[in-house]
Amino acid sequence: MYFASDNSGPVLPEVMDALAAANTGYAMPYGADPIMEEVRGKIRALFEAPEAAVYLVATGTAANSLALGTITQPFDTVFCSPVAHIEEDECNAPEFFMGGAKLTLVAGGDKMTPEALTRSIESQGNRGVHGPQRGPVSITQVTERGSVYTLDELRALCAVAKSYKLPVHLDGARFANALVKLGCTPAEMTWKAGVDVVSFGGTKNGCMGVEAVIFFDPAKAWEFELRRKRGAHLFSKHRYLSAQMNAYLTDGRWLDAARQANAACLRLTKGLEAAGAEFLHAPEANIIFATLPRAAHQRLHEGGAAYYLLEGTLDGAPDEHLPCRLVCDWSATDENIDRFVALAKG
Amino acid sequence: MYFASDNSGPVLPEVMDALAAANTGYAMPYGADPIMEEVRGKIRALFEAPEAAVYLVATGTAANSLALGTITQPFDTVFCSPVAHIEEDECNAPEFFMGGAKLTLVAGGDKMTPEALTRSIESQGNRGVHGPQRGPVSITQVTERGSVYTLDELRALCAVAKSYKLPVHLDGARFANALVKLGCTPAEMTWKAGVDVVSFGGTKNGCMGVEAVIFFDPAKAWEFELRRKRGAHLFSKHRYLSAQMNAYLTDGRWLDAARQANAACLRLTKGLEAAGAEFLHAPEANIIFATLPRAAHQRLHEGGAAYYLLEGTLDGAPDEHLPCRLVCDWSATDENIDRFVALAKG
Amino acid sequence: MYFASDNSGPVLPEVMDALAAANTGYAMPYGADPIMEEVRGKIRALFEAPEAAVYLVATGTAANSLALGTITQPFDTVFCSPVAHIEEDECNAPEFFMGGAKLTLVAGGDKMTPEALTRSIESQGNRGVHGPQRGPVSITQVTERGSVYTLDELRALCAVAKSYKLPVHLDGARFANALVKLGCTPAEMTWKAGVDVVSFGGTKNGCMGVEAVIFFDPAKAWEFELRRKRGAHLFSKHRYLSAQMNAYLTDGRWLDAARQANAACLRLTKGLEAAGAEFLHAPEANIIFATLPRAAHQRLHEGGAAYYLLEGTLDGAPDEHLPCRLVCDWSATDENIDRFVALAKG
Amino acid sequence: MYFASDNSGPVLPEVMDALAAANTGYAMPYGADPIMEEVRGKIRALFEAPEAAVYLVATGTAANSLALGTITQPFDTVFCSPVAHIEEDECNAPEFFMGGAKLTLVAGGDKMTPEALTRSIESQGNRGVHGPQRGPVSITQVTERGSVYTLDELRALCAVAKSYKLPVHLDGARFANALVKLGCTPAEMTWKAGVDVVSFGGTKNGCMGVEAVIFFDPAKAWEFELRRKRGAHLFSKHRYLSAQMNAYLTDGRWLDAARQANAACLRLTKGLEAAGAEFLHAPEANIIFATLPRAAHQRLHEGGAAYYLLEGTLDGAPDEHLPCRLVCDWSATDENIDRFVALAKG
Repeated sequence: MYFASDNSGPVLPEVMDALAAANTGYAMPYGADPIMEEVRGKIRALFEAPEAAVYLVATGTAANSLALGTITQPFDTVFCSPVAHIEEDECNAPEFFMGGAKLTLVAGGDKMTPEALTRSIESQGNRGVHGPQRGPVSITQVTERGSVYTLDELRALCAVAKSYKLPVHLDGARFANALVKLGCTPAEMTWKAGVDVVSFGGTKNGCMGVEAVIFFDPAKAWEFELRRKRGAHLFSKHRYLSAQMNAYLTDGRWLDAARQANAACLRLTKGLEAAGAEFLHAPEANIIFATLPRAAHQRLHEGGAAYYLLEGTLDGAPDEHLPCRLVCDWSATDENIDRFVALAKG
Repeated sequence: MYFASDNSGPVLPEVMDALAAANTGYAMPYGADPIMEEVRGKIRALFEAPEAAVYLVATGTAANSLALGTITQPFDTVFCSPVAHIEEDECNAPEFFMGGAKLTLVAGGDKMTPEALTRSIESQGNRGVHGPQRGPVSITQVTERGSVYTLDELRALCAVAKSYKLPVHLDGARFANALVKLGCTPAEMTWKAGVDVVSFGGTKNGCMGVEAVIFFDPAKAWEFELRRKRGAHLFSKHRYLSAQMNAYLTDGRWLDAARQANAACLRLTKGLEAAGAEFLHAPEANIIFATLPRAAHQRLHEGGAAYYLLEGTLDGAPDEHLPCRLVCDWSATDENIDRFVALAKG
Repeated sequence: MYFASDNSGPVLPEVMDALAAANTGYAMPYGADPIMEEVRGKIRALFEAPEAAVYLVATGTAANSLALGTITQPFDTVFCSPVAHIEEDECNAPEFFMGGAKLTLVAGGDKMTPEALTRSIESQGNRGVHGPQRGPVSITQVTERGSVYTLDELRALCAVAKSYKLPVHLDGARFANALVKLGCTPAEMTWKAGVDVVSFGGTKNGCMGVEAVIFFDPAKAWEFELRRKRGAHLFSKHRYLSAQMNAYLTDGRWLDAARQANAACLRLTKGLEAAGAEFLHAPEANIIFATLPRAAHQRLHEGGAAYYLLEGTLDGAPDEHLPCRLVCDWSATDENIDRFVALAKG
Repeated sequence: MYFASDNSGPVLPEVMDALAAANTGYAMPYGADPIMEEVRGKIRALFEAPEAAVYLVATGTAANSLALGTITQPFDTVFCSPVAHIEEDECNAPEFFMGGAKLTLVAGGDKMTPEALTRSIESQGNRGVHGPQRGPVSITQVTERGSVYTLDELRALCAVAKSYKLPVHLDGARFANALVKLGCTPAEMTWKAGVDVVSFGGTKNGCMGVEAVIFFDPAKAWEFELRRKRGAHLFSKHRYLSAQMNAYLTDGRWLDAARQANAACLRLTKGLEAAGAEFLHAPEANIIFATLPRAAHQRLHEGGAAYYLLEGTLDGAPDEHLPCRLVCDWSATDENIDRFVALAKG
């Protein structure tokens, strides 16, 4: 009963098999392996972007920080949500890779609105040389609160960015979970909406540790390669990154895994609803924020469930309600979900 | 016949098996996995250093850069060989992670001498606030030219550093290859000689992508953890780093792999000697620098051998001698070595 | 009629005289000049801090950025007001000098409250290695909106910082203007209240370009010196910085200049009140934020007055009210103030 | 008898007068002052470069670091002499402002040769993404050892740089001293020879603290302005930088000052020759490196002369010869020079 994060589950069996299959003989290092050729081809085809520059790194923070570092000047500021992973959970990695550029937090919740984004952009870049200059807009899809931007919402944010000639970065650590929710194509959720660079996550959805960075305009490709190496994120035995991503993208496995995770989250939500839980919002992908009585948390804790309590502690009045975050990965089982719900019900 | 690098061979079967074995259920992320506990215990025992702080990262450049970044101030300079990997092959990653600190190249070849190191240290830090301040000494063992410092040589370099109160970093990308050559203990080759921080390589010697960073004094441990995260080098599914290192260190597998690589290099050297090659120096680990007539290089190239020609091209006078670098990893086979030698002989 | 900023007025005649007087023969460079000895002694005496480390730089941004860079780690975040100069008007200089550390904006107006500061500190540093770590609190006195923290307010903010063991930086670009308003001693407004490092401004109050950085605990003095040099802020002909600061601090000239500026601002405010202006708050130092009808702005503009309109333009309905910022320096004359008021009245 | 440096002498009286003259009323801050318009015009005319972007900063380190930071990527390396000021005397400021780029030291003495520069460039940039990329060539004129590159020498170095498409930076801290030695035009010594960016020194030649940075191609002008602000090197009361540079450039005062300094150095050299001194090379500008018996150094020291002894101490055998550096500024008097020579003679 592990619902703390989708970064702690096992690797998809197909991915493990691909690693074993790749483990034979020598392969050119540093991204020149033949499997990377396959990966590049698959991603270009999936995204309908035959010119796209495609790179692999091993962590989501690396994908975001290197992507932003490549399109941001050190005197710029990046516009993002106040709960963006790049703001809250990367220990200043984006600032480090951007040479000291700033993040400007767009007022509101996890989903930025075009109006709030416009106000935020307007509040910067109007002090000449004195203030930070306007830099990229970074959007997280699925958001850190489990919401999914609709295509119209994405297009509207990108349109704001474009009206100021600012590039758009998409933090797609849970790209697949959003895609199956929207039922659209990767192109529709990215460059057709106005996205310039994508962090395309694999790790949280069944890989061991691999994320793709995709630039739809390859003009910055070489600079990215240099920044990846300088960031110590270029793997010598690169074929093992390639093999993961290749298996992930084969036969729709990445979409199936996301569907499993989203379905698990839905089952969990419905079960908890019946147990009297309240939710920040309806489940859209594989993350929900629920509020349960302390007594339920206590039973879950004693029963061995793992997840994050967002406020308060297990000690206190049993009927006080405490919020928590619950995340399902592809490997969550109905059995574990139902056990969790039963414990919550008491 | 791949002798271009030891970063392109396959992963040890025991390491692959360990990855598969680790791939079950949930595990705490970010280094809190139970396998990491085992790794920490094994490394502390091997190094006779029960207090040591032990961390894993996925690339050698990350290990070096983060280690140096933790013990160097941005106004310092690091003393190293002119052919050090941190100088030549890391695209300014050390400078990046050290916030713009400098490298001072100690005059001479791949092995620094105490005299040259002293002169180099003396040449810095004597301009008050105007020049860079004296920072760590970084030693590569096995060197980038395939030499192995003796314990006496290591001790002498560390003694120079200590006499200036400077910390010592050991770039041990090929730590095991040096250790089996010297036939000493890990403690003797590190803290007993005066080394403070070690980049302990796994990748080049049969792992998929894992290096340990070991601080014998744990005072900087927390700072390292923050710098690792900020460098985007903290893995969420950390158990798969742990599993590699754990298998590598089990039952002396790491030493066996190094012995295989060193022995392969010796066989290759003897064969090439018989073929009339000349060598920069006698083989000490798994790298040699040899000079062969162009005609031999041409035959090898046509025969499918892969390695780096250091000067010149394949076109030209057949009897002109051209230098090359040859590296053996654990998986080099006698058959391939002998085929290589036969082609060289012509 | 220049009320745009206190950074554009002339230099105090005593400061100019001191520069001329210093311009004879040779003087030791880089801060070893004898006048700097005098300055150090004067500042230590004024602040009742015989151990304080005292340095001079030429710009306020340098003072703030170097001070913060010295007490902040690159994985930290600094707590400051959303309108802090370090956030809005230094083009990412603090982030640059701090190696990519972040600024966390404490919700509210120009003056931070202890409650809001506590909430802000609580919101950071609770994510282990994942989020930024808690770093210094930076307080601007006089604030960027012209408010002056009372001693009790300063003490309360410092007490919050101290309860988290965080250092406190005071951006005192207008230190003298606040001091004469409060009628307290420099020690009371700084270390006795809990401030650790001060940017002590001279430029805006009648110097040519000089600010002191004062560390009450000299432990970081040498690091500051190295960071100043590395930031290219160490002057060779340092005596000309020393001479400015020395004259500024002689015979209470610095306090007289601040009193002149504050009195000018009061006269301006009273005059504009009579002209129907509305104010963000009562004048406390030498800056006010006033709202006037567009017609008044038009008359002022045509009459040659210089100041910043904060919203809107001169074109539009004459009776619409538009906000502006008005700043008085030591050299503002009654005649100019009265002309300004007369134009505003129409 | 101060011959330690040309950074410790007084300011030209014309410069002091200009500061006093500028000290009236308000002036637009941050470089928008009318005197800066004059300066820009004068520099463009002097350099026959009507499009040039011209900026002022207060220190030579700032001029060099900001210029290099603007034309260098963080993954590049800059080619310079082993005794370049940017290598030896700027405490890693260039690395800081370049975001961690490296300096590659061209083998040889203070003057780089085209052959050595070519070898140095060839040694870099040939490792693909692994090594640093080739960045600017930085030339110091007058060199740190007092030599002056001839126009042919400058042209040859620039031609090497251009053949690799690398930009050229000229560290002209002693620009005027070189120019009067060569008897050429500023254009001939810069863009006509192939220089792209110049640090044009004023401080060492009679200003208080001002250096111009001149980009002959204005494409990077705005980026430089942002980097200057972010480096905390944009002065609010900028008119006092402008006034210095303006007076310096008026009526050939800058050239006269340099002629005075060079002539003083020649007189000093001739006098010391007669006293038996030996020289590193003949005087070309205002710096010489001389070797004198210890007894002479002792007499000079007792007589109050100030200069740097480069090796050894005053204690020891009286007839041992010890090297020293001697620098003359514009204000060196014949009387002091002759007293110095007399003491050296004994």
